[in-house]
Amino acid sequence: MATVRLWTDEDAQADPRVQAVFADIRATRKSDFLNNFWRALANQPEQLEQTWAALKRVMLTPGELDPLTRELLYIAVSTANNCSYCVHSHTAAARAKGMTPGQHAELTAVIAMASHTNALATALQVPVDDAFEVR
Amino acid sequence: MATVRLWTDEDAQADPRVQAVFADIRATRKSDFLNNFWRALANQPEQLEQTWAALKRVMLTPGELDPLTRELLYIAVSTANNCSYCVHSHTAAARAKGMTPGQHAELTAVIAMASHTNALATALQVPVDDAFEVR
Amino acid sequence: MATVRLWTDEDAQADPRVQAVFADIRATRKSDFLNNFWRALANQPEQLEQTWAALKRVMLTPGELDPLTRELLYIAVSTANNCSYCVHSHTAAARAKGMTPGQHAELTAVIAMASHTNALATALQVPVDDAFEVR
Amino acid sequence: MATVRLWTDEDAQADPRVQAVFADIRATRKSDFLNNFWRALANQPEQLEQTWAALKRVMLTPGELDPLTRELLYIAVSTANNCSYCVHSHTAAARAKGMTPGQHAELTAVIAMASHTNALATALQVPVDDAFEVR
Amino acid sequence: MATVRLWTDEDAQADPRVQAVFADIRATRKSDFLNNFWRALANQPEQLEQTWAALKRVMLTPGELDPLTRELLYIAVSTANNCSYCVHSHTAAARAKGMTPGQHAELTAVIAMASHTNALATALQVPVDDAFEVR
Amino acid sequence: MATVRLWTDEDAQADPRVQAVFADIRATRKSDFLNNFWRALANQPEQLEQTWAALKRVMLTPGELDPLTRELLYIAVSTANNCSYCVHSHTAAARAKGMTPGQHAELTAVIAMASHTNALATALQVPVDDAFEVR
Repeated sequence: MATVRLWTDEDAQADPRVQAVFADIRATRKSDFLNNFWRALANQPEQLEQTWAALKRVMLTPGELDPLTRELLYIAVSTANNCSYCVHSHTAAARAKGMTPGQHAELTAVIAMASHTNALATALQVPVDDAFEVR
Repeated sequence: MATVRLWTDEDAQADPRVQAVFADIRATRKSDFLNNFWRALANQPEQLEQTWAALKRVMLTPGELDPLTRELLYIAVSTANNCSYCVHSHTAAARAKGMTPGQHAELTAVIAMASHTNALATALQVPVDDAFEVR
Repeated sequence: MATVRLWTDEDAQADPRVQAVFADIRATRKSDFLNNFWRALANQPEQLEQTWAALKRVMLTPGELDPLTRELLYIAVSTANNCSYCVHSHTAAARAKGMTPGQHAELTAVIAMASHTNALATALQVPVDDAFEVR
Repeated sequence: MATVRLWTDEDAQADPRVQAVFADIRATRKSDFLNNFWRALANQPEQLEQTWAALKRVMLTPGELDPLTRELLYIAVSTANNCSYCVHSHTAAARAKGMTPGQHAELTAVIAMASHTNALATALQVPVDDAFEVR
Repeated sequence: MATVRLWTDEDAQADPRVQAVFADIRATRKSDFLNNFWRALANQPEQLEQTWAALKRVMLTPGELDPLTRELLYIAVSTANNCSYCVHSHTAAARAKGMTPGQHAELTAVIAMASHTNALATALQVPVDDAFEVR
Repeated sequence: MATVRLWTDEDAQADPRVQAVFADIRATRKSDFLNNFWRALANQPEQLEQTWAALKRVMLTPGELDPLTRELLYIAVSTANNCSYCVHSHTAAARAKGMTPGQHAELTAVIAMASHTNALATALQVPVDDAFEVR
């Protein structure tokens, strides 16, 4: 269904850069499973390298938001952007990081609520209050 | 700039339903400030009542996600939905609930990263892996 | 604020195609007021002609949906697409065609409701029922 | 394909809240068919209850817009929000409420036209005319 | 999977307008293959005629942007609008017009980069610089 | 109007990382003008560094698409994503790189046309033709 070929592990042997990223993804995740997103990106080795490096930095660098919260945010953005692939993959990732059914329910409730008030604020073209502006 | 009139507190005195919601917002938030979103919704008293009731339930009911995490999710959805008003108001709300500059930076990093991979997955039309489907 | 110059009526005198469209808009609407959208499009005379011709055909040709219903649909799409200019101009147009405050309230309620369930269906990636497919 | 399990009628027997909503949907619609959206939402009983209650209120309460017009608006929003499931389900619902092929054609023509001018207004960043602002 | 019937060539024989457009598409493209988009639009003959005429004008009229550049732009918009069908069909069209794997990689890199900075500008609500405004 | 403070050149002196990026932007662009996007990002020095590095790589590395074509694609994506700031800044950037009024007109015509057919394909839920799938 993709607009590009999905690279098998065998295909990856033809390109050391692709092979290296595939290996690092597996090592980082401690899992042999490699999902289609990376197999599709393999057609563009530089994009593959850059995207994986950025994703590791943004999602795995220790910081002020814990890894599960970052996954929940990823699902929220992917839902609002309507990326079917990303909603699937990051919901699975969130579960792997411990998301409970109750957290999933609250997450979707916030997404739905925000979509509701986003639409109202846009339909009524509510002007931003002075108090919300940072100067 | 709105497509409807923004109700002043004086206007609200003409409609007991509007007056009651305005009072409950102020009591719940322990603040006299009432932002334009509610002043615009006042033109549609039923929508005002329903939206405020739903927002209280979704954002304030104790649950498995803490109030600040819910605000961060709200900002994420509002950004992806491109609701200028909502990004402003919920960024202010998140700060009021303790969002640090570091958390804000990590939040925007995740939003940007997700937007980046959402676009790639869509451009390449990556098919969902069987492993991600729930049956 | 535009990314192109807004043509005044005086500017329009320099281009017969622009002048003709401006005149036809005024004649069709029986009003001397000409809104900024057309003044911006005037920089691209062919786009101006084609867009005005298409808009007249789609919005004014007698058919099975009355003119006000078409304006309500225009507002709904413009809101979901988050076009601030279009929400403003078509809300004004709907009022000029008789939209009541009650209809406006119901319109925004449907827009908000749809945005809510759209988000839920996307977050949960609900598969389309066989019964909904046309063959 | 969903990110959550779809509840069968048998599953619903385990949860009285789910069972009650399923029964009310069938009674309200006078049909035994229950579509996947509700079977997915059943994982989150409170969301299921709230969403069904809100949908009944917004779509079925007698008002100034007739039920078919509300369905057409729902399709318009769902299309602009790109919710595949919702476009399918509400197109089926509109047909069940009497939408003719001619009305469907006019609906899609308005959706396409609005998307066209939304894009132009955004590309040219047309400033809102003073005449369109409500004060 | 469509919400309307897809017209076969045999169906088209029943409507001279549909038949004429189908024939013109084939003649213009010098190919017997006719894709589903047109078979779906055939249900709305006027929309079919208008859309094909506009598409020919916009995509095939000699101008200042070459045909391949226009296809790349079409893919960019379709990706951002998240139209799965359109991403597929215009990626195929771009390849037919000579898009190389390297161009495809650069195209997707720009799409991803723009989505990244679009999200940041929206999350931070960056005000437009005076220098960017056209007066 | 931003949700964060815009850093002046004086503010930047307090942070060597910000100062270095500001200097590199000016050197790369051979211009003293520094637009608000970077002044807003300065609040998040790592995001500032990463985004500028990525933008330079994606937009300025010699490749198969010339710099102006990349700017046109950026405008197309920013329009479809409805990023007002980005439409303004990249339209200015495209003009600085030589975009003619004729090219701008053709660009907006393609954006509008794609938005039109994107909406139709979504409204009719047209299934992807087998011929468009890459295997």
